[in-house]
Amino acid sequence: MGRVSDARERLLEAMLELIWTGSYGRTSVDHICERAGVKKGSFYYYFESKSALALAALDHGWAEYRVELDGFFSDEVAPLERILNCFRDSRREQEARREEHGRVLGCPIHSLGAEVATTDAPLRERLEEILAEFLGYYESAILDGQARGEIIAGDPGFLARMVFAFSEGLLLHARMKNDLAPLDDFEPGALFLLSGRTRPATCDPPAAALSL
Amino acid sequence: MGRVSDARERLLEAMLELIWTGSYGRTSVDHICERAGVKKGSFYYYFESKSALALAALDHGWAEYRVELDGFFSDEVAPLERILNCFRDSRREQEARREEHGRVLGCPIHSLGAEVATTDAPLRERLEEILAEFLGYYESAILDGQARGEIIAGDPGFLARMVFAFSEGLLLHARMKNDLAPLDDFEPGALFLLSGRTRPATCDPPAAALSL
Repeated sequence: MGRVSDARERLLEAMLELIWTGSYGRTSVDHICERAGVKKGSFYYYFESKSALALAALDHGWAEYRVELDGFFSDEVAPLERILNCFRDSRREQEARREEHGRVLGCPIHSLGAEVATTDAPLRERLEEILAEFLGYYESAILDGQARGEIIAGDPGFLARMVFAFSEGLLLHARMKNDLAPLDDFEPGALFLLSGRTRPATCDPPAAALSL
Repeated sequence: MGRVSDARERLLEAMLELIWTGSYGRTSVDHICERAGVKKGSFYYYFESKSALALAALDHGWAEYRVELDGFFSDEVAPLERILNCFRDSRREQEARREEHGRVLGCPIHSLGAEVATTDAPLRERLEEILAEFLGYYESAILDGQARGEIIAGDPGFLARMVFAFSEGLLLHARMKNDLAPLDDFEPGALFLLSGRTRPATCDPPAAALSL
């Protein structure tokens, strides 16, 4: 509330929100200032450009999300559950955002990446580092799951990349369709991929029997 | 060369190229006209706005790509090969574009979708239709593959959505990393997903033996 140092944080939050609900390209410095309740002069006191703010906002958002990821991927949780819980949280977040904005927003990291990858090198490079860190969580869960015999054998990096690409494709389709339905495919898909079943669980006889 | 009716087509091609190599948001009507070699007055003779041009360009690009898809997904090709050939073509296209532009560009449909889904309803709706048509190719190949015993049993729609989301996640990661390497995961991943193996082919003894 009104502390001078709040302005920087409000700008970071406004930038993240505007990228997620709209796009980087449609977001002007004027929009950001209006959303943050910060004067344009103050904007340029803290950041030299929209791109510099986006980079700082990305760091800010990722640092906050990493705290959550550390929780989902805690050693105390069964390895497969870590991955499922992480995506369940994404789904809850998507539902909450749809409630608030009337739209399915997808993954902000990937939407920003799709938009700026070819045009803003510092942002792209930071996004690439974030992707690698995110993937690291999946990979360590898969390694632990393999050690416990809960996840199939195979290159854990490859399995992590598969599950991660699958999850991001689903989030992108949810954003493009403005529909949460694609997210329902994650859990049976991840279980099918990682648990060594020879067909997806959605079609297994026990599941079919349950629906009778 | 220079026929009046070329102007519309040049505008369509310029729009597609600028979205793919950059972003929709960064592309102004001035840029488009410059790229197409068309005067701004002519632009507004053909299209009432950048958004209207993007919609027409999307239809134009998709109609051209559908001809290629009809080839890849021909009944005369083995079902699994249809899916693999389609992605191999994407990879070749990505390589050629990187040669030309020095950048990995990813999938234009999804990059545009990630950017405009929350802000341009007509474009989003058309992109959603295109996604459904694209998915239809995968699903029909999977149905045929199941009939021939080449692809595992299970809901073909679910399997198609999994493979499609996986492929799009990889293309997005390739764009974000400016690196073709993520695309190498598609073929072993799709084979693992669809052929009912209990672990990825990259880790099977025969593959390991080959690398000795």
